[in-house]
Amino acid sequence: MNAAFEHSDPAQITIEGVRAAAALIKGSILATPCLPAPRFSKLTGADVFVKFENMQVTGAFKERGAIVKLSSLSEEERKRGVIAVSAGNHAQGVAYHAGRLGIPATIVMPALTPFVKIAATREYGAEVVLVGDTLAEAKAEADRLAEERNLVWVHPYDDPHVIHGQGTIALEMLEAVPDLDTLVIPVGGGGLISGMAVAAKAIKPDIEIIGVETVLYPGMWGALHGREVRCEGATIAEGIAVRDIGLLTQEVVKNTVDEIVLAKESTIERAINAYLTLLRTIAEGAGAAGLAGMLTDPERFRGKRVGLVLCGGNIDPRLLSKIVVRELARDGRMVSIRIDTPDRPGVLGEIATLIGEMQGNVVDVAHHRLFLNVPAKGATLDITFEAFDRPHGEEVVNALRERGFTVRHLEIGERME
Amino acid sequence: MNAAFEHSDPAQITIEGVRAAAALIKGSILATPCLPAPRFSKLTGADVFVKFENMQVTGAFKERGAIVKLSSLSEEERKRGVIAVSAGNHAQGVAYHAGRLGIPATIVMPALTPFVKIAATREYGAEVVLVGDTLAEAKAEADRLAEERNLVWVHPYDDPHVIHGQGTIALEMLEAVPDLDTLVIPVGGGGLISGMAVAAKAIKPDIEIIGVETVLYPGMWGALHGREVRCEGATIAEGIAVRDIGLLTQEVVKNTVDEIVLAKESTIERAINAYLTLLRTIAEGAGAAGLAGMLTDPERFRGKRVGLVLCGGNIDPRLLSKIVVRELARDGRMVSIRIDTPDRPGVLGEIATLIGEMQGNVVDVAHHRLFLNVPAKGATLDITFEAFDRPHGEEVVNALRERGFTVRHLEIGERME
Repeated sequence: MNAAFEHSDPAQITIEGVRAAAALIKGSILATPCLPAPRFSKLTGADVFVKFENMQVTGAFKERGAIVKLSSLSEEERKRGVIAVSAGNHAQGVAYHAGRLGIPATIVMPALTPFVKIAATREYGAEVVLVGDTLAEAKAEADRLAEERNLVWVHPYDDPHVIHGQGTIALEMLEAVPDLDTLVIPVGGGGLISGMAVAAKAIKPDIEIIGVETVLYPGMWGALHGREVRCEGATIAEGIAVRDIGLLTQEVVKNTVDEIVLAKESTIERAINAYLTLLRTIAEGAGAAGLAGMLTDPERFRGKRVGLVLCGGNIDPRLLSKIVVRELARDGRMVSIRIDTPDRPGVLGEIATLIGEMQGNVVDVAHHRLFLNVPAKGATLDITFEAFDRPHGEEVVNALRERGFTVRHLEIGERME
Repeated sequence: MNAAFEHSDPAQITIEGVRAAAALIKGSILATPCLPAPRFSKLTGADVFVKFENMQVTGAFKERGAIVKLSSLSEEERKRGVIAVSAGNHAQGVAYHAGRLGIPATIVMPALTPFVKIAATREYGAEVVLVGDTLAEAKAEADRLAEERNLVWVHPYDDPHVIHGQGTIALEMLEAVPDLDTLVIPVGGGGLISGMAVAAKAIKPDIEIIGVETVLYPGMWGALHGREVRCEGATIAEGIAVRDIGLLTQEVVKNTVDEIVLAKESTIERAINAYLTLLRTIAEGAGAAGLAGMLTDPERFRGKRVGLVLCGGNIDPRLLSKIVVRELARDGRMVSIRIDTPDRPGVLGEIATLIGEMQGNVVDVAHHRLFLNVPAKGATLDITFEAFDRPHGEEVVNALRERGFTVRHLEIGERME
């Protein structure tokens, strides 16, 4: 796939390569802030610092590797133009910097890529080809196009230039916070963690490098532990949902990474919500994976100085809002109940008044008379209300029961979509 | 209200006062990043930089003034404790730093303050008193409490200590970007702009200072122009919805501020959405007001180096998501239509298939048979779909009409809440 990359010898990735990349990208990317996050420290029991790579123009770290790769091309290759397959941040990183450098870029995306990502990629001046239902199908068409048009591949992770570019994040983090004990890094194909691990261990040999994958796509965990794994399923962290991890990156990871933590989907949701509500910033699933790794096993990190890479912030805002509501429900601060009521005037008023008097805040009401399991003379009322906390919500429910109503709790998803 | 503050002589506010405040708060607050925002530059035609005060622990700049005020108290006053009235960021700023400094804090909030703000304020260790339907009613009870318990007032803006604290933001911005031409600053009571204007003009006398108010609460605009104004209405920018601007702050503003821009509510919504989608960060209405001011009159700022203060990020995530959907609708990228259909099997499938074939993405469907204006044998179908852009949405609608369906557009709010 990449003519410049012939083998998977991890010795190709060096601190010198990362330093050269840092000099190259200076001024072309944002040296993003790396800041203490006291509310995450309180949440986890560690001393947490966050590197805000979601503040890059395209919302993700991928620009770093893209610039290094694009800058390595010969004049002749630049004229031919580049091609990449991606439904996500790699597409935008390549499109943006190819545009800046005057290199024609063709980005192949699966047909069902969210509109906002297609539009952003086009906005940066790339030609977007929408084809196939999956990344694999898009890749097949991209192979054909690359051959037909004689384009240069920009691989999203398995390329030394790309890996060296991503590694620059570690330089910046250790410059901002030299005494970090641990870096916690999301893992998809492995480009980010490979470059960062090589750079960080060269500067501070005793630093601990922890990768995080979603439990649905544990490819690097499998490589590290020599285990066959299944990679499949719908994940909220599509940015790290990689079936084919890099050949080069996995060799680098075996040499440099201390452990891969597998985070549950619900933990990643919780982490996205924590970024939003505690840090007031947008993390996509992959971007929140580092925090999710910490929340998966807080004891492992307790008391340590931990650096998290918030590697991307491109998430559908409507999905984000769904996550927030689900987290409120999980915390017992958003309560959904179903009440069987006699179908007579005034019942809704009676119930709503009681909830309001107890300081519950009704946010949604649905009234059903047509369900088969509702008595013909009765109705079912679904009410969602905010409570201060779980005990307060229970107080409200108990008060309704004492008033003679039959109340049952609805699960997340049963009521809310 | 404040014993230490006897008069409204603007000479009380000085660059020396701001510099002393900066020395005092160093290490107790985050020196937040001030970063170039190229996507805002593209949006506005200016060269835009953003100061991320939403990254403070409590999500807003108010901590700065709170620390300076709290630090100015005598030992005896610290023992008595402090009191503040606020439903918002001032409450959290005072509670957090009073807690840190071991000063008992009583925060009086209106009874209907959102739960999340009450909880955060309590979490920082303050005693929260919920009373009254409005800030004015809360204030009356706070006056009683302050007297009864002999507490020291921490005013949200009309206090030299507080103003000097807020002014430190200008020092940091001009250190990060010394050649700013213009600062655009949200205005509520006037504390932030007063401190910043005095500091910025002392350092760079030709810098332009523009304040922004919501058009619903144009108190400072009225003071500057000597005009009676009405301050009322429900605003998305409750953080700057101030009826009684400061006596001291208005004198400072008259001396130092070049203009107050009034931003429409819809423009503030647009600015909140821009922060979310272009910068991937959370701005509350007041926090986004500066950008809204620029969007109100982009010509005035074109080509200039403009510094925005993203002064707060405390917004209900559910409100945020509503704003995003409304903006998509305004842009024609979220289309809501009502279709009168014959009530026969297969109609929904036919319509949904057509929209899908044309690459529209259906996100919501509602089917009504009970409306009085629906023929007894027919039904009404409300469909919301995503389109690439406005022309694409129109193509889809036209295709439905060509297939014989009666389609009309629904307004924002008619369909979506």
